[in-house]
Amino acid sequence: MASIFTKIINGEIPCYKIAETEDFFAFLDINPNAKGHTLCIPKQEVDKLFDLDEATYNGLMQFSRRVAKAIEKAVPCNRVGLTVIGLEVPHAHVHLIPLNNMEDSRFIKKETLSPEEFQEIANAIQANF
Amino acid sequence: MASIFTKIINGEIPCYKIAETEDFFAFLDINPNAKGHTLCIPKQEVDKLFDLDEATYNGLMQFSRRVAKAIEKAVPCNRVGLTVIGLEVPHAHVHLIPLNNMEDSRFIKKETLSPEEFQEIANAIQANF
Repeated sequence: MASIFTKIINGEIPCYKIAETEDFFAFLDINPNAKGHTLCIPKQEVDKLFDLDEATYNGLMQFSRRVAKAIEKAVPCNRVGLTVIGLEVPHAHVHLIPLNNMEDSRFIKKETLSPEEFQEIANAIQANF
Repeated sequence: MASIFTKIINGEIPCYKIAETEDFFAFLDINPNAKGHTLCIPKQEVDKLFDLDEATYNGLMQFSRRVAKAIEKAVPCNRVGLTVIGLEVPHAHVHLIPLNNMEDSRFIKKETLSPEEFQEIANAIQANF
């Protein structure tokens, strides 16, 4: 069965899209730790980050760097953090999270945004990609 | 002033070393989230991950992948997580953390190990690098 992320890539589930290349896709996390929290994924559906073949892993990390630099330009923060956990959705995904303090990195404190706020932040990051 | 991590690379502060290449260094986190929690750093002292030049960033991520695969072989866990936060030590560092549940990823729950346990786990990871 296709993962929820594959359904997002295929447009079967809507998302606030940030960027897309031939092999990778970035969109806003709908349950963000902080405003601008973005997920970067390979289109190839592999559960664990370190099970990706070397070229796909390297490509995902390079794509994530480009997206992170766009977030840094669009979202005021101390820095953008990068986290891969993967215990929930079995499709490798890189969290890029604008951080101001440790609490932003723990996946406990969550931010509530309106659809308009999600769209606005997506547009701002996209414009800097 | 040299960062605490530069002092570790230079041998001025002791560590449980895992691996070293010309440009990168890996050692056990002394205040681990979980047994086997490892830090991978560039020898070049740069605060923020996304301020590393592209080649150093790519090299750090490739080095981290090699170390993570060694951890996966040496430490029983669901998977190895990867996190870069960087709000505490101003020298970019990749956390590789053996995860069994979300609590292992939050930097709240900490594991206490004896020097012998640290050395044993360092040897086991090193042997698989």
